[in-house]
Amino acid sequence: MQESSKKIQVGIIGATGYAGAELTRLLMSHPCAEIAALGSVSYEGQKMEDVYPNLRGFCDITLTGEDDVVAKSDVVFASLPHGLSEPLAKKCDAQGKVLIDLGADFRLYEEADYNEWYKLPYKEKELHRRAVYSIPELYRGKVLETKAKIIGNPGCYPTSIALGLAPLIESGKADLGHIVIDSKSGVTGAGRNPSQTTHYPDCNEAFSPYKIASHRHTPEIEQTLSDLSGESVRVTFVPHLLPVNRGILSTMYVDLKETMELAALWDIYHKFYEKERFVRVMQMGEIANIRNVRMSNYCDISLHLDLRTNRAIVVSAIDNMVKGAAGQAIQNMNLVLGLPEDTGLSFIAPAF
Amino acid sequence: MQESSKKIQVGIIGATGYAGAELTRLLMSHPCAEIAALGSVSYEGQKMEDVYPNLRGFCDITLTGEDDVVAKSDVVFASLPHGLSEPLAKKCDAQGKVLIDLGADFRLYEEADYNEWYKLPYKEKELHRRAVYSIPELYRGKVLETKAKIIGNPGCYPTSIALGLAPLIESGKADLGHIVIDSKSGVTGAGRNPSQTTHYPDCNEAFSPYKIASHRHTPEIEQTLSDLSGESVRVTFVPHLLPVNRGILSTMYVDLKETMELAALWDIYHKFYEKERFVRVMQMGEIANIRNVRMSNYCDISLHLDLRTNRAIVVSAIDNMVKGAAGQAIQNMNLVLGLPEDTGLSFIAPAF
Amino acid sequence: MQESSKKIQVGIIGATGYAGAELTRLLMSHPCAEIAALGSVSYEGQKMEDVYPNLRGFCDITLTGEDDVVAKSDVVFASLPHGLSEPLAKKCDAQGKVLIDLGADFRLYEEADYNEWYKLPYKEKELHRRAVYSIPELYRGKVLETKAKIIGNPGCYPTSIALGLAPLIESGKADLGHIVIDSKSGVTGAGRNPSQTTHYPDCNEAFSPYKIASHRHTPEIEQTLSDLSGESVRVTFVPHLLPVNRGILSTMYVDLKETMELAALWDIYHKFYEKERFVRVMQMGEIANIRNVRMSNYCDISLHLDLRTNRAIVVSAIDNMVKGAAGQAIQNMNLVLGLPEDTGLSFIAPAF
Amino acid sequence: MQESSKKIQVGIIGATGYAGAELTRLLMSHPCAEIAALGSVSYEGQKMEDVYPNLRGFCDITLTGEDDVVAKSDVVFASLPHGLSEPLAKKCDAQGKVLIDLGADFRLYEEADYNEWYKLPYKEKELHRRAVYSIPELYRGKVLETKAKIIGNPGCYPTSIALGLAPLIESGKADLGHIVIDSKSGVTGAGRNPSQTTHYPDCNEAFSPYKIASHRHTPEIEQTLSDLSGESVRVTFVPHLLPVNRGILSTMYVDLKETMELAALWDIYHKFYEKERFVRVMQMGEIANIRNVRMSNYCDISLHLDLRTNRAIVVSAIDNMVKGAAGQAIQNMNLVLGLPEDTGLSFIAPAF
Repeated sequence: MQESSKKIQVGIIGATGYAGAELTRLLMSHPCAEIAALGSVSYEGQKMEDVYPNLRGFCDITLTGEDDVVAKSDVVFASLPHGLSEPLAKKCDAQGKVLIDLGADFRLYEEADYNEWYKLPYKEKELHRRAVYSIPELYRGKVLETKAKIIGNPGCYPTSIALGLAPLIESGKADLGHIVIDSKSGVTGAGRNPSQTTHYPDCNEAFSPYKIASHRHTPEIEQTLSDLSGESVRVTFVPHLLPVNRGILSTMYVDLKETMELAALWDIYHKFYEKERFVRVMQMGEIANIRNVRMSNYCDISLHLDLRTNRAIVVSAIDNMVKGAAGQAIQNMNLVLGLPEDTGLSFIAPAF
Repeated sequence: MQESSKKIQVGIIGATGYAGAELTRLLMSHPCAEIAALGSVSYEGQKMEDVYPNLRGFCDITLTGEDDVVAKSDVVFASLPHGLSEPLAKKCDAQGKVLIDLGADFRLYEEADYNEWYKLPYKEKELHRRAVYSIPELYRGKVLETKAKIIGNPGCYPTSIALGLAPLIESGKADLGHIVIDSKSGVTGAGRNPSQTTHYPDCNEAFSPYKIASHRHTPEIEQTLSDLSGESVRVTFVPHLLPVNRGILSTMYVDLKETMELAALWDIYHKFYEKERFVRVMQMGEIANIRNVRMSNYCDISLHLDLRTNRAIVVSAIDNMVKGAAGQAIQNMNLVLGLPEDTGLSFIAPAF
Repeated sequence: MQESSKKIQVGIIGATGYAGAELTRLLMSHPCAEIAALGSVSYEGQKMEDVYPNLRGFCDITLTGEDDVVAKSDVVFASLPHGLSEPLAKKCDAQGKVLIDLGADFRLYEEADYNEWYKLPYKEKELHRRAVYSIPELYRGKVLETKAKIIGNPGCYPTSIALGLAPLIESGKADLGHIVIDSKSGVTGAGRNPSQTTHYPDCNEAFSPYKIASHRHTPEIEQTLSDLSGESVRVTFVPHLLPVNRGILSTMYVDLKETMELAALWDIYHKFYEKERFVRVMQMGEIANIRNVRMSNYCDISLHLDLRTNRAIVVSAIDNMVKGAAGQAIQNMNLVLGLPEDTGLSFIAPAF
Repeated sequence: MQESSKKIQVGIIGATGYAGAELTRLLMSHPCAEIAALGSVSYEGQKMEDVYPNLRGFCDITLTGEDDVVAKSDVVFASLPHGLSEPLAKKCDAQGKVLIDLGADFRLYEEADYNEWYKLPYKEKELHRRAVYSIPELYRGKVLETKAKIIGNPGCYPTSIALGLAPLIESGKADLGHIVIDSKSGVTGAGRNPSQTTHYPDCNEAFSPYKIASHRHTPEIEQTLSDLSGESVRVTFVPHLLPVNRGILSTMYVDLKETMELAALWDIYHKFYEKERFVRVMQMGEIANIRNVRMSNYCDISLHLDLRTNRAIVVSAIDNMVKGAAGQAIQNMNLVLGLPEDTGLSFIAPAF
């Protein structure tokens, strides 16, 4: 008891969704954090381990309501439909709690963008000014400088894409008018609620894009690329539903302003990421595969050139539920709290 | 016996590979053809139904050698590693047999291209002059005019891509310098021989591109697009290995010279394909999925615009083993023999 | 038009469920039948091909109501929740239509059994007396003798089990008190409605039994085995959910009264089934696999002995949607109408 | 360096096989052990992380030979084809090293059994006398009493079966003449070497038993059940290949000597396992699923009765690569070294 009282008390709102369940699993083995409360609208009053039998023996916490979670926690993780995190942020702010928001409410700088893509206004404008959108590898400095207490945790696709393109965009060598992004995501990305699209026989042995050039992650992707380039960037982004449980692989096509050798491209990436624990720039000749990052917080990036058309082809792979959601949220918590960023996140992907 | 003696006698060389096995299955229900002989180097002397128990009760033919197959057949289908179809074509030609070659030997017009990508010369130059590369929807006229007896049956990726891009390229509205093709293929595309890449635990729950901007189907794709445009076209082509058995989905990104409405794009496609039995231009708003074409000879094409970047996005789906190999080979046979092109090919994709 | 007017007019009630969609697909290529109407409560007024895009170009029929289907059809196929086929049968009977019922209402002889397992009475007792439960291979004679017009089409598990055990049970060599049946079914067996259990990420990379020793197919299985043995038989039956789309494999363990050689067991099966088109008794040493029967109307049976414990082990494989549902329903229609039983059913399983 | 010198030095022979790769991954996070050397015949001289890119950044050890591994290690794990662990054991014994053998050489007490099933003699009879076969939950006492230094780590199927049946067999309530075991294993159980059976398109959407009543794990299963009952037990055991990467689910059918209530059966299991960290006896009504134990060292057991036939049905689920191989091997190492058995093994199964 005494030991645990020294630990950071964390709570999860939306604990029975997939991101919440993954957060629960990962936080169980975080050496400095302890789960104080788990919130769920659908399963309030039930035990978490009755909803997720994989947690049997680890988590006999009874699911509770949002206010209870906020009250008991130093850090609140929220995984909610858009529009619901704003009022929660107000509560957390009032009680001095840190909020790591896995939803969309604190990702976009401009209310106009949020309004265009999510059809809602920003009600709490002051909170939005203080919130920081954070892929730690790219926005770490901003989080530290502003001592942010509200973190907009990135979307899964934008994480895979921003990490994959950042060095090239920042280098100034990309033709910003010709960026095509073809992403493929495992089915956990669609969440826990059953639907026709995610019904096993409709999804298995099937493959298709969806929300073609109209996915809500588009403005988030463009926002980061614009930050990196200093210019307003527009991309074509097409996501696909992949018949696997976990993983996002993004294949990114970027016209180059001038010809370039692969070794030079590799150097740019290597330098950009050499101190990063969770980004692995693969050897020249290797190819990123979701298989090597599943269940881990790693992002693998492989680099390729189409010399015949003078295009760079960047391939990035992450686990959508870890680096693309729960793992990155914990990384952000570590960052906010001044812990080493990889605390509790050093698991290795299984090979199979 | 009498009835069957009127049927076209067909033979398959390389019958125990995946394309050969699929040809066998499909030809079994062709109303005008009868399998006269099946050839296999690996299984010569064994019965086909012992190698493929799904054929039990349908095919007790004993596998034999190449010469025997040629001798017994009016039409020879060959599914062989590159370099081996040239000498076979010579034999078929000498004996007046039709050859539908599912390999790469008769797909490229230019020896220089074949040499660059396959590292072999054209030995039988005269045969190459008479051979016709045929996606029937695009090259039907040439087959008929030249009364071709050697058909270069297209590769699986080029089929999905050429059918998907043909109307747009022919329309003159595409910026030919900015074509990016991201294709995803089921594992049968890798053939029947086991390898580490296709070992179930390495392949399942995994996803990755391969032969990035260096796949041998690239010159074949460019050859057809150049035919259609009248200009020399270069594309970026990246294939991926998809953890499903069958199907190729190609997502194709084409910059437009000028802005365009989706209805106008749809009209171009609708007109181009309105008389084609095996190409379905989907309704606006629908999205192509390999699920709807598996086990069938159909190519589904869906059309999309990214208005923000003025790009057309064309999605095509085929079954790599049917329209991408065995089915199209039979369609080519029908074409050469003057039969209705859909003879023996009217099977419907199962929904699941 | 004239040609089709000679064809048997068939209708499907519950056409948009999985069994209905499979019936639609298969009946499309039946040479003597024509789909006159398709009924659906959920999608009435929509076109079948809009619900199932795999049927695009084949089936532009607009979905309609039950009465319309009955009125337009000579033969009605019904795939409905239990309790709903009884009133339908009354309508069909009044209008002189044949009813092939894919639901549970006409499978059990005894009202007491139906009542125990389905919690409903038999309201139309006279219709139940005239209805015939028919796995054609086992009940063909009864269908013909009684000139039945109402057919209780068997359940998927019972089909795989009854065909697998029939010769051994009939031979009198089985210890009827020791029969254990372990079955595994693909996910289409759970139907088209999404649920948590069939949600892709919950189902993929998972495996589990369900309804252990309590599945409603148990009395149907026991009824057939009792018919075959002339005694009242009780079995232990445990179904499992298999992460594949299609197929049921049943592994059946039967204690033998006396020791026996494998060849003798094989002879019993071979004689029992030698004239059957759709049952393949595999060679000794071969093992049944759902892979070899998918998309076909075949049942593969392999035979094995555990000499150390004197048990026979019979393995049977079918496609649950074809021989286990839609295919067998068509086989029953052919039987009732006096057509060759395999009419429209001679498709071969693809090897992959 | 100093810190690591206090850690137990461990080595793995056969490190690039699946069990070896999983051992490597798990040992990386063991707080008291350090990998001193990795041995591989196939990849000697290469780096482990080049063979397994998921380990990139964690394991730049160069693969070496057997003698080097033994020399550098306090504890040697071996995952070798049968017959090769005997000479290795001799080396380890001579150098005072602990050997945890994941192969078959030290599992069977009786040379006659080994000879019958593996067609080899026991050459080092004295080592066999000192070796201990250990499922820790069942043989912990024997390991401690004998201070064993050679551990025969159990097979994957026997682990799932022995843990599932132990309480019932020990209770004396089972009819030992009527035990039927139907097991299903993920494809990693077949190892890393590609073969036709494990080729993705042959294995995906397929399902079949193999080695029916003739699998080499049979005598190992019977040995443990005989230990528990004090009688010679024979069972029927049939394994199946399941199209998932990981997991074994065993469905076990046991005739009961007398009728029994489920609560009484549950009590027997609960008492037997209440102090065990890695065995979870599920609540009555729950059903074991490989999904809840994947990537963990847990064995889930669910209990069921068929009251109509007076049979107990026990379902157990493990991860074949963890509790069925690498995890249990580490648990055995912990046991031998006097560490808490769960050291380095407390990971939770992901829910998806």
